[in-house]
Amino acid sequence: MKWCRFQTGQRVSYGLVEDDKSAESAVVIEVDGSPFAEHRITATRHSLGRIKLLPPIIPRVLYAAGPNYRGHLEGMAKRRGEPPRYPARPEPKLRSVNAIIGTDDDIVVPKECAGAVQPEGQLAVVIGKTARNVSREDALDYVVGYSIGNDISQRDWQRSDRTLFRAKNCDTFKPFGPWIATDLDPAKFRIIVRHNGTVWEDFSSGDQIWDTPTWIHEMSKTATLHPGDVLWMGTQGADGDMVPGDVIEVEISSIGVLRNRVVAQT
Amino acid sequence: MKWCRFQTGQRVSYGLVEDDKSAESAVVIEVDGSPFAEHRITATRHSLGRIKLLPPIIPRVLYAAGPNYRGHLEGMAKRRGEPPRYPARPEPKLRSVNAIIGTDDDIVVPKECAGAVQPEGQLAVVIGKTARNVSREDALDYVVGYSIGNDISQRDWQRSDRTLFRAKNCDTFKPFGPWIATDLDPAKFRIIVRHNGTVWEDFSSGDQIWDTPTWIHEMSKTATLHPGDVLWMGTQGADGDMVPGDVIEVEISSIGVLRNRVVAQT
Repeated sequence: MKWCRFQTGQRVSYGLVEDDKSAESAVVIEVDGSPFAEHRITATRHSLGRIKLLPPIIPRVLYAAGPNYRGHLEGMAKRRGEPPRYPARPEPKLRSVNAIIGTDDDIVVPKECAGAVQPEGQLAVVIGKTARNVSREDALDYVVGYSIGNDISQRDWQRSDRTLFRAKNCDTFKPFGPWIATDLDPAKFRIIVRHNGTVWEDFSSGDQIWDTPTWIHEMSKTATLHPGDVLWMGTQGADGDMVPGDVIEVEISSIGVLRNRVVAQT
Repeated sequence: MKWCRFQTGQRVSYGLVEDDKSAESAVVIEVDGSPFAEHRITATRHSLGRIKLLPPIIPRVLYAAGPNYRGHLEGMAKRRGEPPRYPARPEPKLRSVNAIIGTDDDIVVPKECAGAVQPEGQLAVVIGKTARNVSREDALDYVVGYSIGNDISQRDWQRSDRTLFRAKNCDTFKPFGPWIATDLDPAKFRIIVRHNGTVWEDFSSGDQIWDTPTWIHEMSKTATLHPGDVLWMGTQGADGDMVPGDVIEVEISSIGVLRNRVVAQT
């Protein structure tokens, strides 16, 4: 199933996406309720092309599980002219939920920076049930489904600043969507990042340094994960600059495409 | 005014606290709505001692403005055996809203750590209106009021880990309350931290490296602050260990007392 959250007029609802091979044929079946609580499928149908897709959830907490791929860790170390330092255990960072936007929303390059930002295509894991102290074996039972994140970064600030506040958490820096796909294996996704149609990254979620169950198991030892909380699982490359006018797409097999345009702050 | 959020039975409401000189005399007047939206004072009154105070808000984003006092920065550097490194500009970090608890709730020391945690008494600034690109002069117009935070930390993990996930964001590590006090000057608070009744810190919010309007002005250049978002303004000292059985209090003049007991994870 593909769960989307969408707006028609002033109303926000969840829905199930069907036949999404093309925007023309795709249909959204409106649902009363949400994937995180009781829900009921209604008789109302919308053409996907005629609704506004929203981020599938605004989580209480958005975790970022980076660095979680050797390629990204080594690429970032090279940019800094340092040897790579491999993490000893899975330790997430936090991202601002205020920076979340949906698919087709614009990524705004702040006036204060040098004019470019950088993408990080990531698998997004959406928690469906309260998880505290769960075993590695049971961890995926607490996941409702998978989506796509783009952990937009401003590398100059990432180098110069003490914290990641400006480098990672400016308004619009967290594209997330287009929907949540259920009943999939998180070790088997192919993740492709396309910049103006050119492939910048093409990697497998099987190459994570720690797999998704290990992250959930380790995190839940000290922090409860709540329904709707989201973990972004890291990226492989250390990609180039995006400037206003560019289009960035993150595609994940069996999920869909998260597409955003880059614009300048006006 | 003092705005509290409280629970009676299954119901959660906001209220105004009156005559809080003693728990016996204090009264809470129930309010329909919240300080962040339209509201109406009702005729319902509760004795403060007979309701359960909740954290005054669970923000979308909880920011921590540390290091923001020279004493803390120098004390922490000394613990690490390094010279202090003064920040060049105000840069917040993020804290997990899942770790927030209210006054009188227990701080739980995780099984995984060596058995002690450390307090950081902080002024909490609660945003009341959407703030984007606001001037230093206008910044306080966007604040609805002030509360108290205790940024519980686990210093071993703060030293050993790559991120602050375990050091700062375990369940129960963010006591916040008891309520939001309005119409006060954020440069004039006296902040006292008491450990089992002994004063560990006694400092003034006037000693912040950057004052509250400067933080709001600088942050709002790249990130919108939303009603209910909360900024914790840093602490002065680098205090000692708290172990199960201890009671930690943070008192801020004209606001009140945030009091929590420390317990071991069972």
